[in-house]
Order: sequence, then structure tokens, then C-alpha cells
Amino acid sequence: MNKIEHIGVAVSDLSKAKALFDTLFDRQGYKSEEVQSEGVTTHFYQMGESKIELLEATKDESAIKKFIEKRGEGMHHIAFDVSNIHSEILRLKEAGFIFINEIPKKGADNKLIAFLHPKSTGGILVELCQDAPK
Amino acid sequence: MNKIEHIGVAVSDLSKAKALFDTLFDRQGYKSEEVQSEGVTTHFYQMGESKIELLEATKDESAIKKFIEKRGEGMHHIAFDVSNIHSEILRLKEAGFIFINEIPKKGADNKLIAFLHPKSTGGILVELCQDAPK
Repeated sequence: MNKIEHIGVAVSDLSKAKALFDTLFDRQGYKSEEVQSEGVTTHFYQMGESKIELLEATKDESAIKKFIEKRGEGMHHIAFDVSNIHSEILRLKEAGFIFINEIPKKGADNKLIAFLHPKSTGGILVELCQDAPK
Repeated sequence: MNKIEHIGVAVSDLSKAKALFDTLFDRQGYKSEEVQSEGVTTHFYQMGESKIELLEATKDESAIKKFIEKRGEGMHHIAFDVSNIHSEILRLKEAGFIFINEIPKKGADNKLIAFLHPKSTGGILVELCQDAPK
């Protein structure tokens, strides 16, 4: 794991959240992107070498909608940048970690991503991500 | 705000958590430090330009103990590095943000720190931190 790639933040109203985080961070986000497969619209802020990713649900089955209903808005996951997501998944599986998806899938921002289950990572939803090959 | 300084993670058993995160991150932490004023023992991992800070309660009144009782183990706060904590507190207060402590206090890792209340920051416990003057 090379660095914190981003922190995902669940928000219920993206336009209100943008106004709030623009002021909090004293800058504007650099892009928004819908990820249909996850049922979310994302909005990214650069913060040093990392990003903050706001996540708003676009459908009722979205994990973000369920998260907010259960726990309220706030920090949802931490994503770590890895050089080779396949070897990292293998290493962690062999060490006993449990994946939500052990086959990497396409995420926002042109990444290959895989999520570990919070029950095996001290309650943290951990995402591994690697820049998708062009 | 210059970068993510660290992410705070609430853990109920620091020695077990160290073993878990050593494996997850594939590295060892670089230091442990007790912060008596906060009732916590901390343990830090370097992750690129940021850190992951494990937090274990050392007394019943610790905010970390209460957090775990209410929400379970997991992500507790995000700390952002700022160049001048005093001017940043002033800017955010004027914009309507609510501080838990608006007078900076001494935190772990030789920092001056101030916390914003999650109700004004989209459910995130946000910490500002600046290297304490020597």
C-alpha cells in the first residue's frame, strides 16, 4: 500500500454537501462522476496526494443510501493505492482477510477496486485501488 | 488545509489491533504514545504523506470508549494539516462551523489540535492540526 488514495464520505444531498465542503476545505472539487454500477454520484476534492470523495446515492439499493439510514452521513470508507491489486488481494486473502469482491471491478476515476469486509479489518470498510491499465 | 495528516481509528484492544494492521498494511507502526489528557494510547503507521493513528481508551471517560460503545470499532476522525491553526479556526468560525475546542490544545505527535463538531461537518469528526512550535 503506497498511500491513502481517498476517503469516501457518504452524503445525503450532494449539492448541499458541495457547498459545505467547498467552504470547509477552502477549495472547489475538481470533478463529479456517476458510477452507475454502484448507484452513486461522486465528487472529488484534491487534498495533498490524497482525495476526498463525496458519495450520494442515485438509487434505493445503493450501499450509500443504506449506510446513511443506518449510521447517518459521514466517513464511509478508506481507499489505499496499491501497485498491483491482484497480488495484494492474494496476499491479504492468504493472511485471512475477507473480501466483499475479490475480483477487482471498475470504480470511479479510472481505477480497479476491491473492498475488504469491515468485520475482518477492525470495523473499517477498506478499498484497494490501482490505476486501471489504459 | 495542506493534506490529510492522519486518520484516527478507534480500537478496543491495541495489541490485537497492531497485529491486524501490521498485516493489513504490510508494515509495522513507527511509534506509540499515550495522550493522558485524552485518555488514549495511540499507535502510528506511516502511509505516504499521511498516517493512520490507532486509538485505544485508557479510561472509562475516554471519548474513544464511548465511541466504540455507540458505534463499534472503526474510523473515528480525519485530521487535516494546516499551516496556521489560529487563522484557520477564525476562518471556519466566521463561516459558521462549530468547534468542540476553539482554543488549540496539545495532541499526540507534538501537534496543536482543534476539533470541529460533526454536526457542522456532514457527520465527520474533523481535526485541524499544526506542528507545535518548538
